[in-house]
Amino acid sequence: MNELTLPYTQLKQFAIDIFLKINCSKSEATLAAEVLLNADLRGIDSHGLARLSGYVRLWEAKRINSTPNVQVIHETPSTAVVDGDGGLGLVVAPKAMQIAIEKAKNVGTGWVAVKNSNHFGIAGHHAMMALEHDMIGMAMTNASPLVAPTFSVERLLGTNPICVAIPAGEQPAFVADFATTTAANGKLEILQRKNQDAPEGWIQKKDGSISTNANELKDGGALVPLGSDREHGSHKGFCLGAWVDIFSAVLSGANYGPWVPPFVSFLAPPSDPVGDGIGHFFGAMRVDAFRTTKDFKHHMDNWITRFRAAKTIEGQDHLIIPGDPERESEKERRKNGIPLNDKVVEDLKELGKKFALSF
Amino acid sequence: MNELTLPYTQLKQFAIDIFLKINCSKSEATLAAEVLLNADLRGIDSHGLARLSGYVRLWEAKRINSTPNVQVIHETPSTAVVDGDGGLGLVVAPKAMQIAIEKAKNVGTGWVAVKNSNHFGIAGHHAMMALEHDMIGMAMTNASPLVAPTFSVERLLGTNPICVAIPAGEQPAFVADFATTTAANGKLEILQRKNQDAPEGWIQKKDGSISTNANELKDGGALVPLGSDREHGSHKGFCLGAWVDIFSAVLSGANYGPWVPPFVSFLAPPSDPVGDGIGHFFGAMRVDAFRTTKDFKHHMDNWITRFRAAKTIEGQDHLIIPGDPERESEKERRKNGIPLNDKVVEDLKELGKKFALSF
Repeated sequence: MNELTLPYTQLKQFAIDIFLKINCSKSEATLAAEVLLNADLRGIDSHGLARLSGYVRLWEAKRINSTPNVQVIHETPSTAVVDGDGGLGLVVAPKAMQIAIEKAKNVGTGWVAVKNSNHFGIAGHHAMMALEHDMIGMAMTNASPLVAPTFSVERLLGTNPICVAIPAGEQPAFVADFATTTAANGKLEILQRKNQDAPEGWIQKKDGSISTNANELKDGGALVPLGSDREHGSHKGFCLGAWVDIFSAVLSGANYGPWVPPFVSFLAPPSDPVGDGIGHFFGAMRVDAFRTTKDFKHHMDNWITRFRAAKTIEGQDHLIIPGDPERESEKERRKNGIPLNDKVVEDLKELGKKFALSF
Repeated sequence: MNELTLPYTQLKQFAIDIFLKINCSKSEATLAAEVLLNADLRGIDSHGLARLSGYVRLWEAKRINSTPNVQVIHETPSTAVVDGDGGLGLVVAPKAMQIAIEKAKNVGTGWVAVKNSNHFGIAGHHAMMALEHDMIGMAMTNASPLVAPTFSVERLLGTNPICVAIPAGEQPAFVADFATTTAANGKLEILQRKNQDAPEGWIQKKDGSISTNANELKDGGALVPLGSDREHGSHKGFCLGAWVDIFSAVLSGANYGPWVPPFVSFLAPPSDPVGDGIGHFFGAMRVDAFRTTKDFKHHMDNWITRFRAAKTIEGQDHLIIPGDPERESEKERRKNGIPLNDKVVEDLKELGKKFALSF
């Protein structure tokens, strides 16, 4: 598999141009491109430019509204529900997170549930918006059903990621951003491209039995919750995925569980929706709503330093603190460019052709 | 192994009498006994009467204050930090959760971090306090270090449980209450008593290699985070355990990570504490801070009904909704009594003898 490596600024401009072509405003095209490219920078390739053509196809199918009226439809001093008006999640999500941050400024914390949205890129981008305000940020979203809960043969949940971003002082922030499945779908896609098997415990066949076929989802199989099987705690992974689904969609009025509309335009959304679009949930907590920022950061630094210095198993230099790999990727890719695989390059070329933009 | 089954009311009265003997006030002795026995009722035997003698020994070692002045030391409209004054977690935790609930009544949500506390029984008890107010409840706590993060051979985290309790309408509440490890320590204790091996993926040896010895922790081994190993997402389980630790202790000013004092009185607390006692974190969110309670409950009922009706693997009747097994246990044990194993009966008899109480 060949790769093409291109500079961040060039790729971001291309994404902005595409979003402008589908009628986003200039500010929203820029915002959407920033959120999207953040995934590529941080090494979550499956959620970045690889998805750009998917967003465009959903817009073509009139399932994404590129000029949404994003608004608060219900609120209290510490909460809000936002109607995303069918907009790009890449635009709706940072707007909703900003509302959570403003609420936290006023009353200590802010919590915003969102309905009528679409896929929002990486959760990490939105949660990390809190950091510069000395706040803890949280972001979660539901997604198209690909996951079978423990004992189920039906796909009822998405990979439903959670991000918790916690500021530190001298140390870089703690940023845990993870799908609530054993393996994210992006990892399966990598194996599919390489024509490799998946480890046991990532996926199941359509009858619920163990599979190592990375293409099993195409035959009615499913991803499994974090924990892999009941003996190894998959019911806990199911709890996590369900929690994300309920906070994102039952609180907001979005579609939940098997009713979440698919990201791909060639699959029709369920004909009996239980809500509007997909749902997200965001939180912001001011650190100084609990103790002085100085004390908090001092102890976060101490926490991170102590864990990083832990004695490790043979062959492993040091513990990985949540957020380390993504931060290192971002540093490297901002400097040296973003590698794109053949399939993505092909996709972007097609997009360029469609809109008379050079790629 | 023999078992003795005794009525709930009799066992609760015994626990009240013991807490009175260590100088708890009448109301706090009753509260502590209720929280403790709730674990036995709900089938979490490791966190109920099996721990009563442990609490007493910590009191004897002057590591639990039976007449604490539990107070708010910092607050905003939606947050508070509570100093538990070294009290029983069984008493401090429900008081802190009550503060979260009052804040939620005022501004939509309430979030309370607690320092200077002790083990609080089952997280489920505290989170479920929110349900009767039509609120979502959350509870988490850190605990003595028994868990090695991914790649670590050191024990740096406790089994750090999380509970999320979500009200429904006709359906019983959704209550996810789980340790952030592959297996809770209580499950290992059951295997130890039966002299059985543990499945691969629950524990590691002191050099970090795989073990199936249920007694491995006595030889310097460790429990592992949910996910078991890196290939199966143990770094995500580490994220969860770390999240609980930071919210419970870095936000509140309690001890975190390897500094969390041990529950057992024969092990001394670390000589270089980084905070006060152990920490908890509680949340309460008014459902109607997001949408009408009626709409929310209608959709929670639909969520639960749809998931419970999912097609299952062969040999399994239906999906288990989080909270189902504990609720069934409670129903059965309230009616037929609580079974106690030999070791616990022995323990309680000794306690009775010590305080001239009949058991």
